[in-house]
Amino acid sequence: MAAARAIAAFTVHGGRIGLARAAFAVDADWIDLSTGISPWAYPARIDPADLHQLPDPAGLVALETAAAAVFGSDPAQTIAVPGSDIGLRLVGALAGAQRPAVLGPGYSGHLAMWSAPQMVDALVTAGHDALVLARPGNPDGMIVDRQQLGVAARELAAKDGWLIVDEAYADAGGEPSIAAERWPATIVLRSLGKFFGLAGVRLGFVIAPPPLAGRLRRMLGDWPVSGPAITIGTAAYADTPWQAGQRTRMTGMAAEVTALLAAAGLTPVGGTSCFTLVETGDAAALFTHLAEHAILTRPFADNPHRLRIGLPPDAQGLARLASALQTAPQSRPPT
Amino acid sequence: MAAARAIAAFTVHGGRIGLARAAFAVDADWIDLSTGISPWAYPARIDPADLHQLPDPAGLVALETAAAAVFGSDPAQTIAVPGSDIGLRLVGALAGAQRPAVLGPGYSGHLAMWSAPQMVDALVTAGHDALVLARPGNPDGMIVDRQQLGVAARELAAKDGWLIVDEAYADAGGEPSIAAERWPATIVLRSLGKFFGLAGVRLGFVIAPPPLAGRLRRMLGDWPVSGPAITIGTAAYADTPWQAGQRTRMTGMAAEVTALLAAAGLTPVGGTSCFTLVETGDAAALFTHLAEHAILTRPFADNPHRLRIGLPPDAQGLARLASALQTAPQSRPPT
Repeated sequence: MAAARAIAAFTVHGGRIGLARAAFAVDADWIDLSTGISPWAYPARIDPADLHQLPDPAGLVALETAAAAVFGSDPAQTIAVPGSDIGLRLVGALAGAQRPAVLGPGYSGHLAMWSAPQMVDALVTAGHDALVLARPGNPDGMIVDRQQLGVAARELAAKDGWLIVDEAYADAGGEPSIAAERWPATIVLRSLGKFFGLAGVRLGFVIAPPPLAGRLRRMLGDWPVSGPAITIGTAAYADTPWQAGQRTRMTGMAAEVTALLAAAGLTPVGGTSCFTLVETGDAAALFTHLAEHAILTRPFADNPHRLRIGLPPDAQGLARLASALQTAPQSRPPT
Repeated sequence: MAAARAIAAFTVHGGRIGLARAAFAVDADWIDLSTGISPWAYPARIDPADLHQLPDPAGLVALETAAAAVFGSDPAQTIAVPGSDIGLRLVGALAGAQRPAVLGPGYSGHLAMWSAPQMVDALVTAGHDALVLARPGNPDGMIVDRQQLGVAARELAAKDGWLIVDEAYADAGGEPSIAAERWPATIVLRSLGKFFGLAGVRLGFVIAPPPLAGRLRRMLGDWPVSGPAITIGTAAYADTPWQAGQRTRMTGMAAEVTALLAAAGLTPVGGTSCFTLVETGDAAALFTHLAEHAILTRPFADNPHRLRIGLPPDAQGLARLASALQTAPQSRPPT
């Protein structure tokens, strides 16, 4: 019971290293594999002036222009928000759906957008006036077919509804954004944090059609994001050579992790270049075992067989994961 | 007309040095006196880990606890927001008033909280279910009497309304926050940016009673502010000796600026330790003259006789202001 309670806290969000250190009384150098955040951060320079002065309107335009060039979206409809998680919640407040649906397994922020969304397990629009989904999916990494998604967008548009596509994990794949399609009634969310390894900066984007885009800008005011977010984000989105290198690094390490997990008798059932999802008989036991080796992973409240495992920062981290897995209780998942 | 258009952009917000540099073709080292932001910033240290990792829930609690100790508020009801400007807009969306009023001269963010607030020039609650005001006032520095405000809070509470007090400029005065009164139906906003000289960090607080506080927390999610905002804000609010020194510095410089303006034939009609408000016959002419000397001040769209002048950073800045004022067109305001 104490173990179940201890694990519950880690099924809410990843990244809770402070909590893990206390819960498992392991005071070692933890490896955080509980998030989909890249361990290789974009080299961010902070100019003290960015902290002192009010963010400049021209700087905000430059940021949104640089980001829109990566997404293939219209800069005027590409709105910087203080984290895509807040972006989701504000979109929920502004879009005002009556019968919203979340494509499962959904991210907690998708469920928090509306008071009582319905979970669906397929791309259904019938009976709903809003559909929220992650693309790639989290934690399964599933990429919903683009053409089917276009059909859903048009169905939702026809009844004044909304298609909301959360592309928080899309950058590592390098596929063009759904925002580039310019479908009607489609809202896309992007995040700096995961791919650029800068989750603490709190920078995301909402790409939305004109009437909603204007309402969101009014709700955010003239300083939607911090000075450092503007400077760092503008540099990061403009630096396409670094992005290409990051994609190579992430794809390579994700392949190594997946191979390692499979060799250790775990079943990889999905993932992206940011994380691998495995199934095992008792994910809680595996989570606890790894935590006792100062490796934090991500269990799920709605599935006791799944564990999501992020990218270690280097060969040493990979070796520590391999070593911990040698004594791990990898029971077979139920078939 | 071109001059009027050029000035209009600076009546929206202060701090637009980039715009000023272009508009007045003055490529010198500008002195920014257009905001109420202290020129002496709290010495902020940025830990790269704050940029990389998701902000820790325990860190957020520590920040809100340190800030609440300064405000005299309940930490559970003291909610960190990514800038008090966004805080105002979110409060507007959540509080849902039908007949809101703004005590003039109001800040642009107060007007943006609701679609059509009424401007009032006294502390009236009759006919309104929400009243927003700045304390101290901006730009006049007026401090609404605490006892009268308490009466207004109870009147608004009796009809399920809201009293909203924006204390963005309150820190420099050192007076206890209205939040310490724990009045019913009262929402208080605080800002890190002005007093601590860290407007680019985007950190503010909404102090609100339980039902609204909970709704605001749900709308913001688990990462309402950035990692640097948490680290810097926690240190700044806990550092009461620095705050005392800052109050002395700001009060001293504000007195020097006010004396200088009066000696130059301008009429100080209000202000705080963050800025001085003067009246003159043609504020646009004075604004333009100072801009041509690379000194940015703050004109107002709703009053052609007023100019707000912030704190120069040092004796050299004060001397540049004095020198520019010697050739300025200080016409007497209409009586």
